[in-house]
Amino acid sequence: MTAALIDGKAIAKDLRERISGAVGPLEAALGRKPGLAVVLVGEDPASQVYVRNKAKLTRAVGMESFEHRLAADTPQAEVEALIRQLNEDETVDGILLQLPLPDGLDANAAIALIDPEKDVDGLTEVNAGRIVLGKQGLVPCTPQGSVILAKSHLPDLSGLNAVVIGRSILVGKPLALLLQSENATVTMAHSRTKDLAEVCRSADILCAAVGRPEMVRGDWIKPGATIIDVGINRIEAEDGTAKLVGDVAFDEAKEVAGAITPVPGGVGPMTIACLLRNTLLAAARRAGQPDPQGV
Amino acid sequence: MTAALIDGKAIAKDLRERISGAVGPLEAALGRKPGLAVVLVGEDPASQVYVRNKAKLTRAVGMESFEHRLAADTPQAEVEALIRQLNEDETVDGILLQLPLPDGLDANAAIALIDPEKDVDGLTEVNAGRIVLGKQGLVPCTPQGSVILAKSHLPDLSGLNAVVIGRSILVGKPLALLLQSENATVTMAHSRTKDLAEVCRSADILCAAVGRPEMVRGDWIKPGATIIDVGINRIEAEDGTAKLVGDVAFDEAKEVAGAITPVPGGVGPMTIACLLRNTLLAAARRAGQPDPQGV
Repeated sequence: MTAALIDGKAIAKDLRERISGAVGPLEAALGRKPGLAVVLVGEDPASQVYVRNKAKLTRAVGMESFEHRLAADTPQAEVEALIRQLNEDETVDGILLQLPLPDGLDANAAIALIDPEKDVDGLTEVNAGRIVLGKQGLVPCTPQGSVILAKSHLPDLSGLNAVVIGRSILVGKPLALLLQSENATVTMAHSRTKDLAEVCRSADILCAAVGRPEMVRGDWIKPGATIIDVGINRIEAEDGTAKLVGDVAFDEAKEVAGAITPVPGGVGPMTIACLLRNTLLAAARRAGQPDPQGV
Repeated sequence: MTAALIDGKAIAKDLRERISGAVGPLEAALGRKPGLAVVLVGEDPASQVYVRNKAKLTRAVGMESFEHRLAADTPQAEVEALIRQLNEDETVDGILLQLPLPDGLDANAAIALIDPEKDVDGLTEVNAGRIVLGKQGLVPCTPQGSVILAKSHLPDLSGLNAVVIGRSILVGKPLALLLQSENATVTMAHSRTKDLAEVCRSADILCAAVGRPEMVRGDWIKPGATIIDVGINRIEAEDGTAKLVGDVAFDEAKEVAGAITPVPGGVGPMTIACLLRNTLLAAARRAGQPDPQGV
């Protein structure tokens, strides 16, 4: 192995500790703890694990966690009424609607109701627009975490060539815009891209966010490049057990790249840490306080 | 000259004629003409010419033109009050705040008040966000016109490499996102890009939107590429007279490119045509009518 490992687990832990350090002074200023409300509709097992984990880490940094669990057959109007209520609730700084919603519910309509100042997932039109316009807003967590990991290895991205594979609204598009605002030259690649391997070989920073196990091979990588692997794919290992792999063939890539995020333990842990960071920022901004420093 | 000329003037005229053809049926459905309100603050000579030209072309396609001229020393509150009034006015489908505003006025604060459904310049956070999220919205006029010109020569952009030079919020960033939604592989280049000439040579579609006269040279261009020149720069010609040139060295580029937009007469005329198109769409959508076809 020649590549340095970008340890997302350690970097996320460090970020959570810095958030925890900023919560105390903010709590003193607000007269209450910053609060994150999570709405879970239905009983999707993976979502239940995520929500439990988010709640635990929210409390661990000293914030309030409000959990709202609704039955899978909850009508749309009731989900929307809850979001309106959370918008009005002064003790709630962040609202997270756990996706996907059960069949029959309209996630877009529900998301559209979230107050942009409490939209800690960065899913609303207003927050997406603020990224384009270069204005202060709440940035989606996974792309935000990806940029933090890239900068942990390359503090200055200016003038570097970045390639983002995947153009989802949750990751690929905002990630491309964030890398551009760091002054990288960004190419947005996707399923229609011709000679994707050749495009990837131009990248000083290669971000894969497509959800295809080990699609990016070692010979797609420029020697010394920094690899941010956003994919988390469950595959069957040779011994029949389940195994998580990224969108990058790690064993090949680590022989060529300069630095690489592992899966698991790379971008994944950053997502919740950035959610807590957004909640902290939302709490400060809603109260007219300056953004906490050092987080 | 080997490159085909992309005649923006003719394509814009054709688009305006199709808009004109769609106005009649929409007027019948609405019981009134679609209306565009233009707000001009101060006496900037170039802005006065633009506003006069917009009003003339608005009436020429059969729409109402409402012009609001305010003195340069109008207070911010008065500009904002006018925008609120236009938001409420049912006969106004589009609101255009002519930029730049005189010193001392806050354009961002004024723009933020424009009802996104009437934001025919596509300047609000909501409409910028809708481009990222792939939702129906009102798209800024110059990038929209640029894509129409590119597609006039290359009807299917899927899989082509596009390079956009410049990352302004008015042109570069939305243009990159629009080209991506046409399935091009888009590279966003800018002043920090290393070896810009080499990046440009990878482009099947090269869009220059930087405002630097003739910056893109002939040897930056891949033979056969389609060149969309968004720049409009006033320079002094050899005989001392003023002359308009683009961001691309036209005389060199036309010997290499497959197709190219001239300056003037390329992207420029498309901007107003797309403004009228946005006004037509806004009028239809506000009334719950389907988008007019063929425009």
